[in-house]
Amino acid sequence: MANWELVSSAASFGGQQQRYRHQSDSLNCQMHVSVFVPPQAQKSHRLPVLYWLSGLTCTDENFVIKASAQRIAAELGMIIVAPDTSPRGEQVADDQGYDLGQGAGFYVNATQAPWDQHYQIYDYIVEELPALIRQHFHCKQKASIAGHSMGGHGALIVGLSNVQQYMSISAFAPIVNPMECDWGKKALGAYLGDDTTHWEQYDACHLLKQQGQFLQLPILIDQGLDDDFLTSQKLTKPFDELTKKINYPAQVNYHPNYDHSYFFIATFIETHLRFHYKHLMSQ
Amino acid sequence: MANWELVSSAASFGGQQQRYRHQSDSLNCQMHVSVFVPPQAQKSHRLPVLYWLSGLTCTDENFVIKASAQRIAAELGMIIVAPDTSPRGEQVADDQGYDLGQGAGFYVNATQAPWDQHYQIYDYIVEELPALIRQHFHCKQKASIAGHSMGGHGALIVGLSNVQQYMSISAFAPIVNPMECDWGKKALGAYLGDDTTHWEQYDACHLLKQQGQFLQLPILIDQGLDDDFLTSQKLTKPFDELTKKINYPAQVNYHPNYDHSYFFIATFIETHLRFHYKHLMSQ
Repeated sequence: MANWELVSSAASFGGQQQRYRHQSDSLNCQMHVSVFVPPQAQKSHRLPVLYWLSGLTCTDENFVIKASAQRIAAELGMIIVAPDTSPRGEQVADDQGYDLGQGAGFYVNATQAPWDQHYQIYDYIVEELPALIRQHFHCKQKASIAGHSMGGHGALIVGLSNVQQYMSISAFAPIVNPMECDWGKKALGAYLGDDTTHWEQYDACHLLKQQGQFLQLPILIDQGLDDDFLTSQKLTKPFDELTKKINYPAQVNYHPNYDHSYFFIATFIETHLRFHYKHLMSQ
Repeated sequence: MANWELVSSAASFGGQQQRYRHQSDSLNCQMHVSVFVPPQAQKSHRLPVLYWLSGLTCTDENFVIKASAQRIAAELGMIIVAPDTSPRGEQVADDQGYDLGQGAGFYVNATQAPWDQHYQIYDYIVEELPALIRQHFHCKQKASIAGHSMGGHGALIVGLSNVQQYMSISAFAPIVNPMECDWGKKALGAYLGDDTTHWEQYDACHLLKQQGQFLQLPILIDQGLDDDFLTSQKLTKPFDELTKKINYPAQVNYHPNYDHSYFFIATFIETHLRFHYKHLMSQ
């Protein structure tokens, strides 16, 4: 099959909400990725790009349908790339739980069978997908990265470990310390094995402790205080406390009444897009 | 069961996106209805209310998830009530087609078996649901009504036949002449029988021809020109032509490139909410 095939395109706020299908080398399967192409793509200048990483159970389409991001992206002239959350297909290993296997890739490179055959999602997000996007769209050199829950974890670990590639990071209700919560222990144990030293590169709190004083990538986090997973799944707070301890440039906002849903994301997505835009345009 | 039970509530733009369950007398089954309650509901004044009627296959949740309406409704202090598109449940008659039975009520009162046992959706929308909303929320006397596709048809026929109850009508890609298109013929034939004189009260073009010169309810319609159903399902145009012929106060906007999806609705929902707000506040 073609390596970058348009499967749908719908007009949205003067731009196009598109969906592409391609064969992924790193994931060794066919993938879908959603791309919002703003009206400014008609012109010749390079556009800012934001990658959005979704949470458990999501595909590339949840953000596109639920986050209300297109209006602002169209105003700002920002491309938003929303990949799927895992490799997909009948030949791809899976688990009956919603928090392991397809829809739950955790943005790591798996080393353990049977997951290691396809679950190289870290490489997909950091290398393969950005190369495809640069090939098919007229983009600024550096991008920004954002995400929700498991995808917020993804945005933090990808951004903090590749500071040369991104201008800014943001997250809604991110899992910041997967080594210490049930979702994280289950997934990292399955994908990476029992030796927890291999988990550390995928734990935002660990990365910040280890090298935070050398990093200066701006970070924005929003967190609802009625989020059912706030304490149990180590969302936001342990990371927030660490940033304060080392004076890391992170802005963390807590919102009474808001939960873990896309209604929360839709309410505050505008501030995230404007935050990234400001940093993306400074390159 | 309780006749008005809150089943979920999520903070959204300072208000609450809620979902209620209730036993419907007119539909003779349990129904769900989604209600956006804006932040202004805390205060004592009566709020404007907009009813949103969805299209084929939809439930009360599609609009809530996909239309990006909450931001504007929160700003304006507008309640938005989104009912389901048909009676629901195992005991409710259904059809294998997506365009008949559950999810496809067409906003009529059915007279033919087996549909007549539950499919009294016109009464539900015009009488039962507004009475429940007035009972549970502090509302202005008259409401406005809007919808998409089959729901645009619903908004037009309900509004035009109950002008004393509504301040304004709007629609996205409405079926305006169901007596003359496949979707309409199938549904009206099944629900109302072969005698097409019984269909006329549910055909917006017929209502406008018959009594348009006596009505002055403001109407706003938006229509995408890349809509696959534009010609085949008699969307917008026959109604637009009639309004021009009799100088009816309707504003009809056509949009190149836009299709029949919620990406189209999300792009233009703001103009609809502001249109209704202006008229709702003039009472």
